[in-house]
Amino acid sequence: MGKGRLEAFSDGVIAIIITIMVLELKVPEGATWQALQPIIPVFLSYMLSFVFIGIYWNNHHHLMHLVKHISAGIMWANLNLLFWLSLVPFATGWLGQNHFQPFPVALYAVLLDLCGVAYTILQITIERRHKDDLRLKDIMQRQRGKGMASLFLYTAAIPLAYINTTISGLLFITVAIIWFIPDKKIEKMVDGEIEK
Amino acid sequence: MGKGRLEAFSDGVIAIIITIMVLELKVPEGATWQALQPIIPVFLSYMLSFVFIGIYWNNHHHLMHLVKHISAGIMWANLNLLFWLSLVPFATGWLGQNHFQPFPVALYAVLLDLCGVAYTILQITIERRHKDDLRLKDIMQRQRGKGMASLFLYTAAIPLAYINTTISGLLFITVAIIWFIPDKKIEKMVDGEIEK
Amino acid sequence: MGKGRLEAFSDGVIAIIITIMVLELKVPEGATWQALQPIIPVFLSYMLSFVFIGIYWNNHHHLMHLVKHISAGIMWANLNLLFWLSLVPFATGWLGQNHFQPFPVALYAVLLDLCGVAYTILQITIERRHKDDLRLKDIMQRQRGKGMASLFLYTAAIPLAYINTTISGLLFITVAIIWFIPDKKIEKMVDGEIEK
Amino acid sequence: MGKGRLEAFSDGVIAIIITIMVLELKVPEGATWQALQPIIPVFLSYMLSFVFIGIYWNNHHHLMHLVKHISAGIMWANLNLLFWLSLVPFATGWLGQNHFQPFPVALYAVLLDLCGVAYTILQITIERRHKDDLRLKDIMQRQRGKGMASLFLYTAAIPLAYINTTISGLLFITVAIIWFIPDKKIEKMVDGEIEK
Repeated sequence: MGKGRLEAFSDGVIAIIITIMVLELKVPEGATWQALQPIIPVFLSYMLSFVFIGIYWNNHHHLMHLVKHISAGIMWANLNLLFWLSLVPFATGWLGQNHFQPFPVALYAVLLDLCGVAYTILQITIERRHKDDLRLKDIMQRQRGKGMASLFLYTAAIPLAYINTTISGLLFITVAIIWFIPDKKIEKMVDGEIEK
Repeated sequence: MGKGRLEAFSDGVIAIIITIMVLELKVPEGATWQALQPIIPVFLSYMLSFVFIGIYWNNHHHLMHLVKHISAGIMWANLNLLFWLSLVPFATGWLGQNHFQPFPVALYAVLLDLCGVAYTILQITIERRHKDDLRLKDIMQRQRGKGMASLFLYTAAIPLAYINTTISGLLFITVAIIWFIPDKKIEKMVDGEIEK
Repeated sequence: MGKGRLEAFSDGVIAIIITIMVLELKVPEGATWQALQPIIPVFLSYMLSFVFIGIYWNNHHHLMHLVKHISAGIMWANLNLLFWLSLVPFATGWLGQNHFQPFPVALYAVLLDLCGVAYTILQITIERRHKDDLRLKDIMQRQRGKGMASLFLYTAAIPLAYINTTISGLLFITVAIIWFIPDKKIEKMVDGEIEK
Repeated sequence: MGKGRLEAFSDGVIAIIITIMVLELKVPEGATWQALQPIIPVFLSYMLSFVFIGIYWNNHHHLMHLVKHISAGIMWANLNLLFWLSLVPFATGWLGQNHFQPFPVALYAVLLDLCGVAYTILQITIERRHKDDLRLKDIMQRQRGKGMASLFLYTAAIPLAYINTTISGLLFITVAIIWFIPDKKIEKMVDGEIEK
């Protein structure tokens, strides 16, 4: 019950975040191909952020799946995550409108880092309330490996943005690919719940 | 459970997409009939896209109704569909503000095509996970006929936009009418579920 | 199940409609009382529309409460209602920014009329699918009286806007008051369901 | 059932309110640190309002948890609360864009006061319908202490804004801290419900 509302509220906020980003794609004047060109970098940054927000929603879904107790701590750790995620549309718009210049790329990497840290805090808060749940612990350890790798790559992308923004971009895409590879074990656990 | 959140998240995103389109209807200066006239094409393009997004929501609803297992593949195929649908407000605004000129009409048709392809990918991904479910297979085959016709008409609308945009417009309306005709069999299946 | 998604989707769209209206309240430049004054009519029109959308949500809630079968017809009748409701933010913004001039007031009344007609169509569509449900019929007849009075008052407000917009405004407020008076019988029925 | 939709609708509206506030963070021109500086106060005001809306969602969640009967009065008291909360993005944007000048700070405090009063009205309306529910009464008395303190601090912040806005700001932060401290008893009650 309490968990249902937490999930529903998070789903709502994440759905709005992922969708209002498209408002940065301002309708250009003129019906020509040339009129569309300036918004191509905005479109690419939107695509990238859509994937990242999608990954967070996916992971949030798996994480919450086995949660049984909602405490005030979990509520606030969840709101903290949503706060940092809500800044992604701003950072994405800045990234796209400045055609991936070093500072916006670095700031985008910093924000992804902060989102990752907020997610880790949420994981730890949940873990503390569910010390005896071995399945939850297992799911978390599996997410943590990928999570640590993501944080490392985001952090590396910050200084690298000042050397070559393409390298930072490739690091972002690498993180996305890491999360795209499905974890068969998590899937089976989640699916097992449904089949029961 | 997992399915519930997938549906809720999709509903949220589709609800936002269908509603933020109305933001393209910018409040005009002046309280006269003349002040309203420039936004009539924007209004017509909004109406058209509202119907298309409505059709997608309706079909998504029927498709998900019989789904039992959610895999990572289904999650990503669903997010892929939502991504292309999220671009509809942009294409709609461009269409309306340029009074249905050839290039925006063609781009709109391309986007509807991409949404259709994304929907087909979602169908196939779901089908693979539910090989033994004959009812689901039946619903899908019924949707597929209409789906193929839609893709064909959208594709035809792309080059035809450069000959006469009215023809493309009529093709869009034809697709909408195809989907308006309810499939009695699908309805009975869905309703049967509720009555049980 | 099917009904749950219809309600959730409608709730989502209505929640967005009621909230994005506030975006018309543009943040003024300057931190003085004078800077706030031009947005007072926008604020008043927002308040009025918030109440109307709130009434629709409330009635939709009561109407759906007893629905058991969802048909394609109900789906489309519901989407039709949501379409006209989605235009309320636009009409509200136009009303407020033009300080309740005759034409925007008349257009606002026309839109409320169209929303009312769309709601009536939804009621009739639901009634046809539930011919034997006496409780549903009872709820509907109770709503219909108020509905007919509202449509009459909205329609009267259209020509009266050209004589005196204040009269139209008073008619709008009258409609709101009509719906504010709770129907004890509907409440008991809905509450009875919960207590069972 | 009726309660479920009330919660879902409120969650939707609150999720939209908390997220559209970020649209006030307009993407600046230029990819430099200087370009970001003007939006720092807007960011700070966003952070503050995010916390306040988060607190309201949290409290709303606890309040609704034990509600069993939904009356028309509760529906309207809830919509009244959502109305005042929906003005928070506007007041926040005005606060941030004017760098916390006295009048916007005072208006922000007035709005928080009005939200607090609306919440109290909702509490009283719910209490009247649940006279025999001792657990609900207990939760409410616990919230009321904090609620009264908040209203007192908001009211104090109004005149103090004209003496020193920093004091008002500190009062706002004090309110946030008051609510951050979790009430162990409420948590156990809510959690108890889940474990049952």
